[in-house]
Amino acid sequence: MQVSSQIPTALVALDFFGIAVFAISGALVAAEKRQDFFTFVFFAVVTGVGGGTIRDVILNVPVFWVLNPLYVAACLATAIVMHFIAPLVESRYTTLLWFDAFGLALVTVAGTVKTLDVGAPALVAVVMGVVTGCVGGIIRDTLGHVPSVLLRREIYVTASVLGAWTYVGLNGVGAGRAAAMITGFFVTFIVRSLAMTFGWSLPAFRPSSQSATDDSEK
Amino acid sequence: MQVSSQIPTALVALDFFGIAVFAISGALVAAEKRQDFFTFVFFAVVTGVGGGTIRDVILNVPVFWVLNPLYVAACLATAIVMHFIAPLVESRYTTLLWFDAFGLALVTVAGTVKTLDVGAPALVAVVMGVVTGCVGGIIRDTLGHVPSVLLRREIYVTASVLGAWTYVGLNGVGAGRAAAMITGFFVTFIVRSLAMTFGWSLPAFRPSSQSATDDSEK
Amino acid sequence: MQVSSQIPTALVALDFFGIAVFAISGALVAAEKRQDFFTFVFFAVVTGVGGGTIRDVILNVPVFWVLNPLYVAACLATAIVMHFIAPLVESRYTTLLWFDAFGLALVTVAGTVKTLDVGAPALVAVVMGVVTGCVGGIIRDTLGHVPSVLLRREIYVTASVLGAWTYVGLNGVGAGRAAAMITGFFVTFIVRSLAMTFGWSLPAFRPSSQSATDDSEK
Repeated sequence: MQVSSQIPTALVALDFFGIAVFAISGALVAAEKRQDFFTFVFFAVVTGVGGGTIRDVILNVPVFWVLNPLYVAACLATAIVMHFIAPLVESRYTTLLWFDAFGLALVTVAGTVKTLDVGAPALVAVVMGVVTGCVGGIIRDTLGHVPSVLLRREIYVTASVLGAWTYVGLNGVGAGRAAAMITGFFVTFIVRSLAMTFGWSLPAFRPSSQSATDDSEK
Repeated sequence: MQVSSQIPTALVALDFFGIAVFAISGALVAAEKRQDFFTFVFFAVVTGVGGGTIRDVILNVPVFWVLNPLYVAACLATAIVMHFIAPLVESRYTTLLWFDAFGLALVTVAGTVKTLDVGAPALVAVVMGVVTGCVGGIIRDTLGHVPSVLLRREIYVTASVLGAWTYVGLNGVGAGRAAAMITGFFVTFIVRSLAMTFGWSLPAFRPSSQSATDDSEK
Repeated sequence: MQVSSQIPTALVALDFFGIAVFAISGALVAAEKRQDFFTFVFFAVVTGVGGGTIRDVILNVPVFWVLNPLYVAACLATAIVMHFIAPLVESRYTTLLWFDAFGLALVTVAGTVKTLDVGAPALVAVVMGVVTGCVGGIIRDTLGHVPSVLLRREIYVTASVLGAWTYVGLNGVGAGRAAAMITGFFVTFIVRSLAMTFGWSLPAFRPSSQSATDDSEK
């Protein structure tokens, strides 16, 4: 419990915005699937707090929303608002991708920062930043049966990895905390945005023969 | 470890019946998929204790079946019995839904009670009740590749939410513990039963245009 | 933290090889799906450490790779190597199955041993061995949208159960630790290998009527 008091206000705000944005992306999946109100809320809450929950459980620190249920209240409020304004949004799928990119950047940095703060090594902090950033969206896509952000061959995990290493690197060379956080956020968000805008992708793994790839359809 | 001694016998019994019922629903999915005996056991155990495991891990209390392996033994016994009697059940899918409703009601209340007991706020208790109640079935449906209870547009999450709030509300106004638990159970079970019997559903979210919904098929 | 020092070197090595082998199987799924480099790494890490992470979280002991990030580094190195040598492997799907069998045997025994070491009862140790052994592959298959090892009607969970009980049984009758571990490993690996080689399977559950099985397609 004593850990939470060490976390500065900036990180709390980062967590807060990150879960709200992921909650929006969760509500948008529920909208796509034409679910009822409480399923909206379920997707908003699970997507919003899922990544951070796994981070806290693995780090063995108190889960952030058990300490402070305002995070859950924010997901609830987000789901209610989205239930009314989602119809106004023309193409929800594209909107989902942009909110997801914003959430990815915020949550990646927040996860990385919190992991370093509890004294874990740099490599663990990067892994936790990436897993935290990506797991919310993966849970959302798995439960909602929509194509996983993980397997679309766009730069997604890559953007998260680069942002997490940016924070860890700047932190390692003694940069200010806020500067490192902001830079890490923008590295992830800009890389992901450029990838979405221009359809960038890293080279895909090339199978050695056609017969090998046919196996994947089995 | 000291937490377990505070949990009254009634709650232990509730936990126990809840996991047995979910174990049955897990075994029925394995039956639908014509799996072998050990996969029956796997589904029975994972569905039976999955929701409560996530609850305990998030609350950072000792996982109930690690303290008391009788819960796991109950899942094993359930799987063995189901392996013999499942063929007698005419329509397993309908049976699965009724057992699932019973388990949902029991586990929702048990999860809500345990969360309040460890001192968490009311909103957290409701979330934990709902997540605990729904996650067992979600894991079962995800691993078994059957249509998720989450996305069928019936009242499911809704029933769990109402039951959890009922317990929290009655508890808040000073009602007796047993009365609040029983009322919470029946609210969830009756709402879910009526929804199944009469095909009730909450109004689905209406998309703004046809083109937007087409996106969901991508 | 004091738990880790009690774990003997042999178990650490077992954990280490187990996650490397699962990391290979994760990278092979990424190869099948023609993903980019960082998704290779993501699958290698999640598959490699996923099972052990869930084991440690449920046992409420520090997660092994947070204590020792060399495990994560091993997954990273595995992903890098696999990115280069996977094209040399003719049939990746078959290769995946063999690596998975090896990983299943190693991780089942490692999970069983660690659970007994922290003082949990025998039944819990078997469950943890099986869940730990199978969950890595289940996460990999779920995230990669490949047919789950769980539902292929081959002997899979069965092999893990037999290996875990072998260790627990030999341990119970006072056999040497190393001998029990090696025997448990070979029981799982040989049972699984024979099942793969000869297409062995346990008798499938027989539904009572054709109409009941049609339900599963809904």
